[in-house]
Amino acid sequence: MEIIRSLEEMKRIAAGVSADKSLGMVPTMGALHEGHGSLIKKCRAENDTVVVSVFVNPIQFGPGEDYEAYPRDLEADAAFCESLGVDYLFHPDESEMYPAHFGFRVVPSASMIRILCGITRPDHFQGVATVLTKFFSLIRPDRAYFGQKDVQQLAIVEAMVSDLNLGTTIVPCPIIREADGLAKSSRNSYLSAEERDAATVLSRSIRMALDAKKAGERNVEALKKIVVEEIEKEPFAKIDYVEILRFPHFERDETVGEDSFIAMAVYIGNTRLIDNAFFSEA
Amino acid sequence: MEIIRSLEEMKRIAAGVSADKSLGMVPTMGALHEGHGSLIKKCRAENDTVVVSVFVNPIQFGPGEDYEAYPRDLEADAAFCESLGVDYLFHPDESEMYPAHFGFRVVPSASMIRILCGITRPDHFQGVATVLTKFFSLIRPDRAYFGQKDVQQLAIVEAMVSDLNLGTTIVPCPIIREADGLAKSSRNSYLSAEERDAATVLSRSIRMALDAKKAGERNVEALKKIVVEEIEKEPFAKIDYVEILRFPHFERDETVGEDSFIAMAVYIGNTRLIDNAFFSEA
Repeated sequence: MEIIRSLEEMKRIAAGVSADKSLGMVPTMGALHEGHGSLIKKCRAENDTVVVSVFVNPIQFGPGEDYEAYPRDLEADAAFCESLGVDYLFHPDESEMYPAHFGFRVVPSASMIRILCGITRPDHFQGVATVLTKFFSLIRPDRAYFGQKDVQQLAIVEAMVSDLNLGTTIVPCPIIREADGLAKSSRNSYLSAEERDAATVLSRSIRMALDAKKAGERNVEALKKIVVEEIEKEPFAKIDYVEILRFPHFERDETVGEDSFIAMAVYIGNTRLIDNAFFSEA
Repeated sequence: MEIIRSLEEMKRIAAGVSADKSLGMVPTMGALHEGHGSLIKKCRAENDTVVVSVFVNPIQFGPGEDYEAYPRDLEADAAFCESLGVDYLFHPDESEMYPAHFGFRVVPSASMIRILCGITRPDHFQGVATVLTKFFSLIRPDRAYFGQKDVQQLAIVEAMVSDLNLGTTIVPCPIIREADGLAKSSRNSYLSAEERDAATVLSRSIRMALDAKKAGERNVEALKKIVVEEIEKEPFAKIDYVEILRFPHFERDETVGEDSFIAMAVYIGNTRLIDNAFFSEA
């Protein structure tokens, strides 16, 4: 495995992949865990050349968010990538990604960002879309792999490659969970032992909604009520949002259909966690 | 010459150009004149394959602007392109460029768009940047040709390909003028005979500023005064803006330097015309 720092070199390597060979990419912010591992394994199985990017993207963090505190461990990430057969770990310098006078933004439609995580993180998704447009334009991957855990990001990235004709196929990958149901996340490392226990309320309440739907409940408000009441029982938990929407355009509806999903952001202490599931999984 | 309507076909053709051959592109809104002709000739001379796009891009027109009235004559444009040796005329359908749920925008920095034409046309340049990102992502030209006449557009497009790593080299081309100095423009066709005479005030006043600089005047306000007074003598003319700025980041300065340019937008009757020049040309 090679670690690439320079944009020009990454571009040259990617352009050198012959037209009959496929290039797959897994964009990450590092602090790699089994969730990323499942994306990398799928990418490895489906492509001739595999690029994993590790870049803590400053422009997707808002003021007061955890940009400085976000966990960074390139050595561990490199060992993890190497063990999974990655060909290139792309770890660009911030100064080359965002030089002086950098100013463009790739901005999703208001209907995709003034909802869910976009309400409390108003510039987050334009930061994500901008860095991914840069990566996809530079590297031109045939496929890029994204976890369903960031379901809003997944829908936005799918819309982005379609709207901007970027030519990369987005491959969604299922959420990877701990044994007790907690969705894997780099931010789980922020949790104290007590908070770690409390954090199971996200996946548990989602499971309750899926079970209720399976038992015949189709009403969105009734399903949300089940979830909200379960979370409110947990003293460490504070709800940011609980939403039931249609995928991929986030329409609201009174009843759930096969393309409906439930998504939530919940603070456990000071740590904001997200989780979601599709009702078709029920 | 082939006329291509389908995005998929255009993408397939462009991808089929072998790696050792160059692809040049001239993006236009049609109503082609000698100004476009000079871009196409340069593109033809410098590239193996030449694509000219003709697309009146709805998202770069504001409310009350001339989207509906903008001149359209595909037959004449096709004959013009064919006579200049163009390989492909790309004329996509609006419905394929902007399908239902289309919502992304590529947005330049505020410092590049809250100035010059961006003040009265606040969404214009994000419309331009969005359509060009689509074209460049789909076609991946090695070079794209832009007239210096839209100097703000030229600076924005150069910043865009750099910021978003689009991999296309932007080639600037000089302004083409009528014998009396009026810059060629598709919008000149809106002018009455009297307005056509009055319209020479743009290039004439710019010439006066360049001559004054050549004679030793370096003060920005003094140079602007010469220009404004000349335009104000013309009864058909109404100034939108006259600015002297640095290229390419549009910094204001008290004195002109080698990277300074003068740019103006002036209404002649109801028709808004633009013109500009670099003081290095003086």
